[in-house]
Amino acid sequence: MKRSPLAPSSMPELHPVAGIKLATAASGMKYKGRDDVMLMVADDKAVVAGALTRSKTCSAAVDWCKDVLKTGTAKAVLVNAGNANAFTGKRGLASVDRMAKASADAFSVAPEDILLASTGVIGEPMNDQAITGYLPKLTANLSDQSWADAAAAIMTTDTFAKAASRKVTINGEAITITGIAKGSGMIAPDMATMLAFIGTDAKISKDDLATITHQVTDESFNAITVDGDTSTSDTVIVMATGQTGLEISGDGLTQFQAALKDVMVDLAQQIVRDGEGAEKLITITITGAEDDQSARRIGLAIANSPLVKTAIAGEDANWGRVVMAVGKSGEPADRDRLSISIGGTVIAHNGDRVDDYDETPVADHMKTRDIHIDVDLGLGHGQAQVWTCDLTHGYITINADYRS
Amino acid sequence: MKRSPLAPSSMPELHPVAGIKLATAASGMKYKGRDDVMLMVADDKAVVAGALTRSKTCSAAVDWCKDVLKTGTAKAVLVNAGNANAFTGKRGLASVDRMAKASADAFSVAPEDILLASTGVIGEPMNDQAITGYLPKLTANLSDQSWADAAAAIMTTDTFAKAASRKVTINGEAITITGIAKGSGMIAPDMATMLAFIGTDAKISKDDLATITHQVTDESFNAITVDGDTSTSDTVIVMATGQTGLEISGDGLTQFQAALKDVMVDLAQQIVRDGEGAEKLITITITGAEDDQSARRIGLAIANSPLVKTAIAGEDANWGRVVMAVGKSGEPADRDRLSISIGGTVIAHNGDRVDDYDETPVADHMKTRDIHIDVDLGLGHGQAQVWTCDLTHGYITINADYRS
Repeated sequence: MKRSPLAPSSMPELHPVAGIKLATAASGMKYKGRDDVMLMVADDKAVVAGALTRSKTCSAAVDWCKDVLKTGTAKAVLVNAGNANAFTGKRGLASVDRMAKASADAFSVAPEDILLASTGVIGEPMNDQAITGYLPKLTANLSDQSWADAAAAIMTTDTFAKAASRKVTINGEAITITGIAKGSGMIAPDMATMLAFIGTDAKISKDDLATITHQVTDESFNAITVDGDTSTSDTVIVMATGQTGLEISGDGLTQFQAALKDVMVDLAQQIVRDGEGAEKLITITITGAEDDQSARRIGLAIANSPLVKTAIAGEDANWGRVVMAVGKSGEPADRDRLSISIGGTVIAHNGDRVDDYDETPVADHMKTRDIHIDVDLGLGHGQAQVWTCDLTHGYITINADYRS
Repeated sequence: MKRSPLAPSSMPELHPVAGIKLATAASGMKYKGRDDVMLMVADDKAVVAGALTRSKTCSAAVDWCKDVLKTGTAKAVLVNAGNANAFTGKRGLASVDRMAKASADAFSVAPEDILLASTGVIGEPMNDQAITGYLPKLTANLSDQSWADAAAAIMTTDTFAKAASRKVTINGEAITITGIAKGSGMIAPDMATMLAFIGTDAKISKDDLATITHQVTDESFNAITVDGDTSTSDTVIVMATGQTGLEISGDGLTQFQAALKDVMVDLAQQIVRDGEGAEKLITITITGAEDDQSARRIGLAIANSPLVKTAIAGEDANWGRVVMAVGKSGEPADRDRLSISIGGTVIAHNGDRVDDYDETPVADHMKTRDIHIDVDLGLGHGQAQVWTCDLTHGYITINADYRS
């Protein structure tokens, strides 16, 4: 698969996270000549929080993680790419049990201390032995330098490995946050589930990490879309080893949340940049909505509209389609207070095209890779930002004959 | 535009409706060499019911029709294609007022007796004089034989004119129902709003017609989708002249409802058959849902999934994508009770692929023009049928550079 034209030019520097080691292996289950199994292990049981797909047909591994996350701690995460172990009935449940048991045995912990994620084809029975058989090799090869290898091992239809890393100083202590992700935009759930695994050496309480992780997920992974389809296996895990020592509290939590958001938005944008067939990254900023949730839903309605996305693919400043998408969102909106700008140029204000509208700067903006659409509802103070990509012939080509 | 490969081979016989006459004219506003204005008039004020877009950014004409429909009677419907008069602010409202007033004057009725619909580009001021100037010509040319011309005059991106007609006998009286529609699938609201105008000589009360129209609209026009986008101007109008004499009641209402559904489902399917780039008609039947509304929402989630639609375009029996779409619908569903059939072949039962699954008959079915997907939720008695088309390169080509 050709590397996305929106891919970053190179992998950023990935700072090791004190207390977290990773290893990868090649199961040979689907991909040849590359690693497709990833193990992420905390030296000691770590505080964990996460967000999982809301799909009613979620995979057995997602059901398993729900229970583990309730405890707020875990020792390791075992991930495989190639088979999603989804819609596999009782056989799928048995696979999950065996994978958790085998990983737990390797570290002398309980199965409930192991998080699992599988991504790949739906509905095919999974040979879990092909994964667990590599546990001795994986545990022998654990290293805090393997973030980039880990990012590559969890790829499926991804055209580039995705990772992000930040260092921040909170209360005089240097905190590291490093994460990896996969997904070409939550858009091909039979192969392209969205997964993200983030580690930090921060010391933070279970409750604080859970609250912050959910809020930041809404502003990052839940604020991106390629085609509105939701995977059976979407999983975000944040693991905090606490090796920096001083527990974060008060203003420190706000700083930690900002740093985690920075990493997660970076990873989320990389997923959109790898959207199947993507030629343009689209940033949609909603202001003046009734509240933030409403703003996000309006933003996603625009981001999910095939008509908006095809217009942008065609470099056509078709703002009428943005109006339509706001209308169909079902959210509070008043046609006569709506304002729309593209690339910073005001096109419509208070429900009517501005009198002296000149399409020239907008047409120039549409030719770039980085498209900005701003919508003001004129109703309240709700705001949100969402990201998507355009809908091109490439998307059809990739998806019209993918499984075979 | 090339005629859709799914278009009917010819226009069906359209029975005249006693008490309804139609005429068409060419405004020259956008289209050259074809009629683009349509007037449908009842000899006497008729009972009317309708369904209008739920878009929060609906057009001024839709707002106008909401008020007229509350009265339950109307004299005429004036429709133009080429300019939607949507998002045109106060100028748009003034256009609607002038169009209603001019039409009312032509028949010596009140403006509140006139229904209006406009379809075409959004956000461009409309020259309503180019339409109302033809009222004398239109009223002079009214005929009960002009249904096919009327169907052609309301087209925008449609590749064929859409009409359907039925005769039924209710309580010994012959009742005619004839209707026309336009739309390439509610998918290009800046040019391809969905409109339908249906006439009948049945005598029916305002309340009964309103109840039946809403119910049947849910089972027809609200059960189709091409890309999930909703127009600012979608309008369905049913006009009953009552010229057959005997008011329909009791069992007769059930028979009338069935006949109206027959006409409206026929028109709705024609719209899907004209979906932009459509190569296959997809019928999705949901059974075993918690209730009928839930069944319809699950059906639409499948029908709107770009992944399902591209898989079908690629003739790939990718049932995993159907599972994913059920899951993302947000409706009650139990992974372990879900059954899926394609083309009548059971693929998965109770949440697991059937042991002896043979893909051969399914692969053969995928090569046809007429794809059937059946999903049973195993929860209750809710059922629904929805229709959509596949998502092809043709859709991208048409929409990626449409307005210019």
